[in-house]
Amino acid sequence: MSALDAPGNALSSWMRGDGPSSDVVLSSRIRLARNMRDAPYPPRLDRAGAEAVVARVAEALRGWTDESGRPLRVVRLDALSPLERQVMVEKHLTSPAHVRQAVGALALSEDESVSVMILEEDHVRIQCLAAGLQLRPALDRALRLDAALAERLPWAFDAEWGHLTTCPTNVGTGLRASVMVHLPGLAMANQIPGVLMTLSNNGMTARGLYGEGSESAGNLFQISNAQSLGRAEGEIVQRMEEAVRQLAERERSVRERLLNQMGEALKDRIWRAYGVLAHARRISSAEAMELLSLLRLGIDLHILPQLDAKVFNELIVATRPAFLQHLTGQEAGPEERDVKRASLIRAALRRAEARAS
Amino acid sequence: MSALDAPGNALSSWMRGDGPSSDVVLSSRIRLARNMRDAPYPPRLDRAGAEAVVARVAEALRGWTDESGRPLRVVRLDALSPLERQVMVEKHLTSPAHVRQAVGALALSEDESVSVMILEEDHVRIQCLAAGLQLRPALDRALRLDAALAERLPWAFDAEWGHLTTCPTNVGTGLRASVMVHLPGLAMANQIPGVLMTLSNNGMTARGLYGEGSESAGNLFQISNAQSLGRAEGEIVQRMEEAVRQLAERERSVRERLLNQMGEALKDRIWRAYGVLAHARRISSAEAMELLSLLRLGIDLHILPQLDAKVFNELIVATRPAFLQHLTGQEAGPEERDVKRASLIRAALRRAEARAS
Repeated sequence: MSALDAPGNALSSWMRGDGPSSDVVLSSRIRLARNMRDAPYPPRLDRAGAEAVVARVAEALRGWTDESGRPLRVVRLDALSPLERQVMVEKHLTSPAHVRQAVGALALSEDESVSVMILEEDHVRIQCLAAGLQLRPALDRALRLDAALAERLPWAFDAEWGHLTTCPTNVGTGLRASVMVHLPGLAMANQIPGVLMTLSNNGMTARGLYGEGSESAGNLFQISNAQSLGRAEGEIVQRMEEAVRQLAERERSVRERLLNQMGEALKDRIWRAYGVLAHARRISSAEAMELLSLLRLGIDLHILPQLDAKVFNELIVATRPAFLQHLTGQEAGPEERDVKRASLIRAALRRAEARAS
Repeated sequence: MSALDAPGNALSSWMRGDGPSSDVVLSSRIRLARNMRDAPYPPRLDRAGAEAVVARVAEALRGWTDESGRPLRVVRLDALSPLERQVMVEKHLTSPAHVRQAVGALALSEDESVSVMILEEDHVRIQCLAAGLQLRPALDRALRLDAALAERLPWAFDAEWGHLTTCPTNVGTGLRASVMVHLPGLAMANQIPGVLMTLSNNGMTARGLYGEGSESAGNLFQISNAQSLGRAEGEIVQRMEEAVRQLAERERSVRERLLNQMGEALKDRIWRAYGVLAHARRISSAEAMELLSLLRLGIDLHILPQLDAKVFNELIVATRPAFLQHLTGQEAGPEERDVKRASLIRAALRRAEARAS
């Protein structure tokens, strides 16, 4: 694979589709952590051992094809520049912890909806992504790949504990199910703290767009299951889908109420956000996220009929620092990035309007 | 005259033209204060006396025609609603002091470049308006009308003191020459205090757009001669034209310097102003003036090639509270005016862009 193929487009195909509840739920993600019982766990692997794990997993993936009959392509991390690695993270195809590894690889399906991190925290992390609220289909796809790998690789599996992982929090199913949700209404109504508490009480955690420690830029939150132990995968996913469906319902009703109560003021905020995005000559990442969130709210509330939701999904990735640097083709400084970001947003909005007209 | 004819358009024809130095000087105005020696001065007029003055001046104006051969039309103040009077003030066709009078009238040429206030502070105030820096032509036109009236009305004129006026500051020539200038560059460079001091040292005063006490909304300033006594009209006007020409030169060089120094940041501010003006759904008068000033600067610096200066001249009048109320056809509240103002700005920008394309 050319190292540059994947970072080239901001929008993976799983982000283009609408999917169920896509007015609130941007995407669903399933991650399964797996390890081989006959190799040391990653923290204890030496270089030769690590190379051997990469080779074994890559070999085990050979011949496997996704639902459209296409194989995964494996790229070694050391074949990617630091910038390209960061772009992969911004596209959610891998994790910050993974791209920091000295030895490791990433396997990707052509539509980027299936990825396998080799030597992240565990030997193998299978990840399946889907548009909207589709945890169950994503889980099914991940389990199908898991089953195929299990025929070739000796998973570290204990009859009592389940899958054994590097970090005890993943022991059991090895499952992390998560959704990315857009909650501009609840944020505007100052209801986010209450939402976080409810999620926490129901065994889920929420954090900002790019994982732990990141702020909730653009009113985007990743909601995940907190525990992987003691319940079957299907049950975990079903409970979570139900909770997210309720959350989406709550967000929708707040949006409607805000529209009724604020009326012209809300439309004004949304149109001003559009006006700035469509015309600014430089814009920071933080301001862009804030305004893009308003833009997306305006699209969902049919206040901006000239745009579709796709432009938002594309821009929240495309305006991230590394992706921008990748586009500028050089190590651009912050000021240059702000200029490039503004220009990219203007162009994307023009394209979106051309599509609509 | 239908009382509504004049307020109907935001842009008097003298505001449409370009005129000399129109990148800085929006308009020039000459006002001549005159009184009749055989009638009490306005503060001492009773109602019957006031009616007699209105009738005599209206009669004296009969038959006079402007350069395009058209007569002045006389409208009594009591034929105008309070709102219509305010619109006349916002269009600079009369003054706040004039429209407060119980008895009085206003004579207007069809293109609104010549107006005669009957019973403002003096019996007669002749006013001539011109686009750009054209004090001399405006003075010539005012003096031609003055000469015609002098044949029919006995001006209070003293060989030593000159024209006698109600307020001693107008004694002599009775002349007030003023220009409206747009100084966004000097404002951005914090040079306005220095400019005001220089003007003051040269016998001129500067104030905001709508006369004494008003703030300098939109970086628009009215510059006037401070004294009417001791110099001939031609000399007063010539000195002032020279001073304003220098001021315009200074404003231009500051603009160029800002463009070189700020570059992308200035373009960004201007395009954001455009973005908000072109898309906001409600906007206050103060914000509109601030953003329109940036818009005009962008037009003058060729940063906004899709617009012409006319749209700015039109909007600074059309977005004033009374003009907006006039357009809404009712006594609109502040919120309603903000919505109407935003809608009017959007429409004007769309029209301007259609003209350019």
